[in-house]
Amino acid sequence: MNEPARTHDDIAAEAARLLDGVRASRPLVQVITNLVSMDIAANVLLAAGAAPAMVHAPQESPEFIRKVAALVINTGTLTQAGAEAMEVATIAARTHGVPWVLDPVGVGGTKFRDETILRLLRHRPAIIRGNSSEIIALARIAGLTQEAGGPRGMDNVHSADEAEASARKLARHCLCTVAATGAIDLITDGQRLVRLANGSPLMERVTALGCALSAYSGAFLGLGAEPFSASCSALSAYAIAGDMAAEGAKGPASFRTAFIDILFTLSGEDIVQRLRRG
Amino acid sequence: MNEPARTHDDIAAEAARLLDGVRASRPLVQVITNLVSMDIAANVLLAAGAAPAMVHAPQESPEFIRKVAALVINTGTLTQAGAEAMEVATIAARTHGVPWVLDPVGVGGTKFRDETILRLLRHRPAIIRGNSSEIIALARIAGLTQEAGGPRGMDNVHSADEAEASARKLARHCLCTVAATGAIDLITDGQRLVRLANGSPLMERVTALGCALSAYSGAFLGLGAEPFSASCSALSAYAIAGDMAAEGAKGPASFRTAFIDILFTLSGEDIVQRLRRG
Amino acid sequence: MNEPARTHDDIAAEAARLLDGVRASRPLVQVITNLVSMDIAANVLLAAGAAPAMVHAPQESPEFIRKVAALVINTGTLTQAGAEAMEVATIAARTHGVPWVLDPVGVGGTKFRDETILRLLRHRPAIIRGNSSEIIALARIAGLTQEAGGPRGMDNVHSADEAEASARKLARHCLCTVAATGAIDLITDGQRLVRLANGSPLMERVTALGCALSAYSGAFLGLGAEPFSASCSALSAYAIAGDMAAEGAKGPASFRTAFIDILFTLSGEDIVQRLRRG
Repeated sequence: MNEPARTHDDIAAEAARLLDGVRASRPLVQVITNLVSMDIAANVLLAAGAAPAMVHAPQESPEFIRKVAALVINTGTLTQAGAEAMEVATIAARTHGVPWVLDPVGVGGTKFRDETILRLLRHRPAIIRGNSSEIIALARIAGLTQEAGGPRGMDNVHSADEAEASARKLARHCLCTVAATGAIDLITDGQRLVRLANGSPLMERVTALGCALSAYSGAFLGLGAEPFSASCSALSAYAIAGDMAAEGAKGPASFRTAFIDILFTLSGEDIVQRLRRG
Repeated sequence: MNEPARTHDDIAAEAARLLDGVRASRPLVQVITNLVSMDIAANVLLAAGAAPAMVHAPQESPEFIRKVAALVINTGTLTQAGAEAMEVATIAARTHGVPWVLDPVGVGGTKFRDETILRLLRHRPAIIRGNSSEIIALARIAGLTQEAGGPRGMDNVHSADEAEASARKLARHCLCTVAATGAIDLITDGQRLVRLANGSPLMERVTALGCALSAYSGAFLGLGAEPFSASCSALSAYAIAGDMAAEGAKGPASFRTAFIDILFTLSGEDIVQRLRRG
Repeated sequence: MNEPARTHDDIAAEAARLLDGVRASRPLVQVITNLVSMDIAANVLLAAGAAPAMVHAPQESPEFIRKVAALVINTGTLTQAGAEAMEVATIAARTHGVPWVLDPVGVGGTKFRDETILRLLRHRPAIIRGNSSEIIALARIAGLTQEAGGPRGMDNVHSADEAEASARKLARHCLCTVAATGAIDLITDGQRLVRLANGSPLMERVTALGCALSAYSGAFLGLGAEPFSASCSALSAYAIAGDMAAEGAKGPASFRTAFIDILFTLSGEDIVQRLRRG
């Protein structure tokens, strides 16, 4: 496998640059996300300096998409109407060249969800962001592997190592960047592959923090950055904010408060000093 | 009325045991709840160590229910589609022997809500958890009493004493456990009856904390505990966390943060030391 | 323009009086709001001492409206079903003389949203509350001005001065009070006009804090206060709580926590001492 070296300094410097870029250009990010994550996804985007717009009606997406820098689609709390809204929005995004992020929450859980996600996949996301178990399940339902397993409910039960082959195959098949997150985060575009080791176990104890990471990735993607760089940068900054928030937290709720505060104040210097490869 | 004695020590010891059980076995709890409570219900379950899944589509419930340990149904922000989704899920739960919790938010408020709740009641919840006013209204619409009154909007305006006869009748009629919460919480299975006196007035100032309690009760029920024990244990732990969170709170929002943090760290010892009978 | 003087003391004294009135009479406020704002709108109302009811089904509104003191309609995360629910509720409110607040989130963004908002406008809101950009866009789509511009996504990009003519025209045309919020808040009933200068830039970094302000205004309106007074009072109290919350905040999330805590404890004295005219 040809895998160009990507140094710690490369990743950190780019993350620092894009972090400032989001604050400077305030990308408008359309987010169609699940009902649990609405509040935190919007608050994460606002703290980052981006402008969230939770527009989802099929009557609006084809018109609204022209104004947005990136689209984020998350399949949690899925309904029939929601699935249709997502398909209309992703078709509109593709038509207008708006890059989009797919967060396949709960993939592998039911036929309805799997079929919906496969339909969305045809409209070519720039980034797929899921936990390791979701990436394994998604590669299987896309017919790329025969690996059993997937999330338990919405929970991650696999490691980055276990998800690596699935992530690579998915990235090549879909011509996109795949981020499989967990204790170690793995990002690949099929060729390049980066592992990041920041973050806190408390992140899994706050609902929809993964969903909000997909939205946060959309802000970086909305700058016009290459999907692989956008994903590496967003995941670096997010996990480092997790490290920092865990330092004073007493539990998941004080962690959540500190985490969003830190996303607001996080500096490029924090990233350079704290980034850990996995 | 034959009412077997249940000592303070019995209740506290069982609550401590089940509290640890949730953390050890991480029960998967499917929650169909109102739009206001999505974030806090999921966060309460995660803090407790359970695994929430806010799956609600009728296309998914019959398949997804096989994986879950318990189901929670909450009728707030009700819609026609939501009512149908709830009925599909409760039928599936009954078919597969999955115990479920009914939280009849807003019962007595409109005909549409009452009819929906009566339909759900036929599918035999293991636990009904409402505030005292909701339990009074529910017993009346079920034809068990002629007592006037019910919630004011979503608010509790009755005491545990006022709700006692309604709770007992409802428990006997539905062959389930009924928990009527408020300043004093009352739990009965029609024979046994426990009153608990922990908790803080700030709990009514945080939206959906009652809804989240129903979800939390689902985690205890998902361990396979008897519904009456699951309900006594969940209510004990929850209200004691409320006591502890109130100690340093400056208002409802800092209370909420402390409350979720404490659910995460609460020990059996905290329950043994703090449990107060009402 | 005839503009009766309204002194600092008038505004502060009335705000203090209504602040206590909400706590004393606990008005029941029905809120049909977007999915992002559900949690914070309900929590703001509870902290203020009001009783929120997020009832929205068209099967319920015509019956439920008879019990409520005020209705709040917010057009964020709009859907076809949501638009229909809003129209049913506003017609019911008008029929039963229940005053209502319109928050035209995202007006100017799509045809579907504009048409929905124009339909709602016919049912005569007592207060229209939007950011300055939304008020400019709303006046234009109502055919009252030819001013270009509107929100960027959901964001405010105009000043109170820029919105003044639009706000006045809208207030006169709709025979209601219009509040255009931002760094300076402007309230007018077409004749009287007040500018308020409290608040913190962090308020724009917390999602749905504007939506929650519309809900908060509904609580004041629900006391039976004149819409112009209710709006001036609600905006004064809210922005002053923002000033106070910003004092110790480390970022948007700790700000949010402090803000809700302060709404719970805010005194008339705080308003008298801190109110600043713009």
